[in-house]
Amino acid sequence: MSRIDAQLAFLIEADKLKTVLRGTTLCDGARRENSGEHSWHIALYALVMSEHANRPVNIDRVIKMLLIHDLVEIDAGDNPIHGNHDPIALEAIEKAAADRLFGLLPADQGRSFRALWDEFEAAETDDAIFAKSIDRVQPVIANLESGGGTWPEFNVTAAQLQSRVGVKVEKGAPAIWSALEARINAWFAQHTG
Amino acid sequence: MSRIDAQLAFLIEADKLKTVLRGTTLCDGARRENSGEHSWHIALYALVMSEHANRPVNIDRVIKMLLIHDLVEIDAGDNPIHGNHDPIALEAIEKAAADRLFGLLPADQGRSFRALWDEFEAAETDDAIFAKSIDRVQPVIANLESGGGTWPEFNVTAAQLQSRVGVKVEKGAPAIWSALEARINAWFAQHTG
Repeated sequence: MSRIDAQLAFLIEADKLKTVLRGTTLCDGARRENSGEHSWHIALYALVMSEHANRPVNIDRVIKMLLIHDLVEIDAGDNPIHGNHDPIALEAIEKAAADRLFGLLPADQGRSFRALWDEFEAAETDDAIFAKSIDRVQPVIANLESGGGTWPEFNVTAAQLQSRVGVKVEKGAPAIWSALEARINAWFAQHTG
Repeated sequence: MSRIDAQLAFLIEADKLKTVLRGTTLCDGARRENSGEHSWHIALYALVMSEHANRPVNIDRVIKMLLIHDLVEIDAGDNPIHGNHDPIALEAIEKAAADRLFGLLPADQGRSFRALWDEFEAAETDDAIFAKSIDRVQPVIANLESGGGTWPEFNVTAAQLQSRVGVKVEKGAPAIWSALEARINAWFAQHTG
């Protein structure tokens, strides 16, 4: 198979990410968001907000990570942070998905994409920490804009948002978390007794 | 307004790109594609296929262009290349959309995004020429994968694809066009008398 044919096979398979539905809705609340459009949106978030990274990041690498980070959901599905799943089992499923999907590419390219995905998952480098932060920011905004989104459905509290989302966003982009925290507290003050 | 608040206002407005429907469908043909998920997919196409650019490109700039290139459709709508529209009138509408949307950002950032969008539209630099090529490649693949997609609806011929799509893809990525051309010719040979 030629390089172009292998690359097209990967890109055609990637199309399926547009059919993976996430827990959150669009900002207008009209429908659930899919992981393809989510991936675009967070790449744009990262591009716009890189100045707020806690430590200097290579924004080009961050964007690449965000473009590929959710591809494994084609096999593993989306697992909302407020839902229940077994993290060990999920990790094995996602690794097998990464093997299959990045394995469609020419070998050198597949290895390079896989290394970038592994780096994102490990969340240890400055680029990966910032990318993970941004991935958590966008759903909060979608929930706030759509009147609380899925928070009521999952019985999410402000304290849970702090522990499940805030800790990660603060690590990569503390200034953004401060801005979100003010909006979250205002929302819960208005919607809970 | 703080920088973060202005940036979030822009990113919340950008969410609407997920509601702009394109002429083409997903590869499985189940529904029409929206411009948000399309923007993700072509950024991934560019990342995967940059080695086939006709001239050396800065792939990081190409990806940024592709992430923002369709935002104007929030106001102007999507205008399929095989449809009928007045290019002069459309250009004015899209420029006004760019004024409004990039104007939501902090001024320095808005100017920088606008310059990148203007460069894409002008299609004169190597980066913009390659970005435009990639933007034309993905819909062809979606049409081929979904059984011809919207070609029958618009009575599109192989010759029209050559003049409306081929010329632009060839300019930025001739090797990719060669691969597409073979698939297009095979499709038309099979589906027309």
